Amino acid sequence: MLDITVIGLGLIGTSLALAVRREGGLSNGANGVVPVRITGYDTQRANSKIARERGAIDTVARDLAAAVAGAQLVVLAVPVLVLRNLLPTLAPLLPAGCVVTDVSSTKADVMAWAAAALPDTVSFVGGHPMAGSEQSGPDAAHADLFVGAVYCLAPDPRCSDTALRLVEVLATTVGARPYFIDAQEHDAYVAGVSHMPFVLATVLAAVTTRSMGWYDMGALAATGYRDMTRLASGDPRMHRDICATNITALTYWLNTAQAELAQVQEWLHIGDEHALLAWFEQAYQARQAWLEAGTQTPGAPPPSPLTRRSLWQQPPE
Amino acid sequence: MLDITVIGLGLIGTSLALAVRREGGLSNGANGVVPVRITGYDTQRANSKIARERGAIDTVARDLAAAVAGAQLVVLAVPVLVLRNLLPTLAPLLPAGCVVTDVSSTKADVMAWAAAALPDTVSFVGGHPMAGSEQSGPDAAHADLFVGAVYCLAPDPRCSDTALRLVEVLATTVGARPYFIDAQEHDAYVAGVSHMPFVLATVLAAVTTRSMGWYDMGALAATGYRDMTRLASGDPRMHRDICATNITALTYWLNTAQAELAQVQEWLHIGDEHALLAWFEQAYQARQAWLEAGTQTPGAPPPSPLTRRSLWQQPPE
Repeated sequence: MLDITVIGLGLIGTSLALAVRREGGLSNGANGVVPVRITGYDTQRANSKIARERGAIDTVARDLAAAVAGAQLVVLAVPVLVLRNLLPTLAPLLPAGCVVTDVSSTKADVMAWAAAALPDTVSFVGGHPMAGSEQSGPDAAHADLFVGAVYCLAPDPRCSDTALRLVEVLATTVGARPYFIDAQEHDAYVAGVSHMPFVLATVLAAVTTRSMGWYDMGALAATGYRDMTRLASGDPRMHRDICATNITALTYWLNTAQAELAQVQEWLHIGDEHALLAWFEQAYQARQAWLEAGTQTPGAPPPSPLTRRSLWQQPPE
Repeated sequence: MLDITVIGLGLIGTSLALAVRREGGLSNGANGVVPVRITGYDTQRANSKIARERGAIDTVARDLAAAVAGAQLVVLAVPVLVLRNLLPTLAPLLPAGCVVTDVSSTKADVMAWAAAALPDTVSFVGGHPMAGSEQSGPDAAHADLFVGAVYCLAPDPRCSDTALRLVEVLATTVGARPYFIDAQEHDAYVAGVSHMPFVLATVLAAVTTRSMGWYDMGALAATGYRDMTRLASGDPRMHRDICATNITALTYWLNTAQAELAQVQEWLHIGDEHALLAWFEQAYQARQAWLEAGTQTPGAPPPSPLTRRSLWQQPPE
């Protein structure tokens, strides 16, 4: 029996618990399933109640100390800026030997906070399951949320191999594919494919809905507009937190997008239809190649060029 | 029996024909259904063959003259820049009294070309069914494509009321909601909710896939990225044509998006988390309001503040 504590019973925390519960515990490949007991804690009691009623957790803890007492694996599923304050509060309460992981969308700041706050007696493994929804809260949670998704793992250099293995098993148990990655690299990459997209979606929603012509425009907006603004319906606080903890990488990508937009404006201005066509064609081809690579994934090995081995045993220079 | 000719048997032309065919003709409300005979023409013979095999059209015409001989309603479902050259070619071939409509994504240039090219003996009604797909060609066509969609109608001032009524019946027959709109207004509005979205999707696809880190980024890209780049998989030539015929309105909207991005960059730079949160919250609320307004649409009256009456009988000044 393994004691897991989930702190933060929103979409991600509750979905992780539901997914582990469905497997009957942590699924350790050929070594079978390790049964678990899941304790949940959330500052909003309504969230704890829903998670409990949905069978995601066994017990609702009355406070943080009770939540982590006896825990062997602690999953921190709270917004990033909440995590910043939570880590020092949690540090003296954590039992020696326990493994702590998070699910935040940014990793470099989180790793630094954890290194500064947590005692040497616990292991921290940064985690980021690359799945979500524009919906939030435990009502929107479901056990399938992580199936087929990439689950980034950024271990603290001090963490034990056993600790890393435990979080890796959590990722595979919920159906995701572990992807070992450096925290800085993670933040640079997801800024491009995850954070810039929700900023662009919000830009589009903001400028159109503020327009004088919105009454008519809204009636004309169809599925393309709906899909392109979907991410603007994500949790505003989560988006703010991500921006606040990934400023450098996000700024780089937004600068790149602005330069690209300026180039398109120039082609429009001079009427360069050839350049526009080539631009649309290149992006079309590149996206097709990405989609085709993605169709190979079900059941495929993790897509990372980094394996655990390469992360831990660097080749001799 | 009414003779309809569809020129251009791609996604839109073939879907329109399939939708009319499914109703057994043009459905005129309480006045019943007028049976139709549909002739098709496409410069690509493969498209004509597929449209014929799928039962969208009765006959494949061997050339343009044969296609429109005897036609009472001609639907021009070709790319916008093709339409520019097609109209003068078609003009001397059109039978007196026939009604011509198009399905182009931009309207002001099209209306000007039609006014210049077509004889007074035919009526032109600009049309734009606001439905589509990132797929193209007659294979992707289906009879449901326009169900519930807005179908913009921009009649030439010279066109007869009967001609307008015929195209309106075409729109309702295929399940769409006619929306009467001035051509310039149409172009300004769809630039915001349709053309700017596909440009932003292409910007996102272009800058990420060209990146040095794309190999890893592509592995980390998830559903948010997929949805936000979906429009970049639309037909590059169609996108180029739309840009080329809607430069002024698109430039206005891209400038607005640039200014908004610059504002976000400023907030990131100075670390203004309050402003970022307020921005995300406003866009979130505005999109929710739009989604809720949209849920009222099935079976609802056309969303336009412009009715046919207001378009044709302006109130006294």
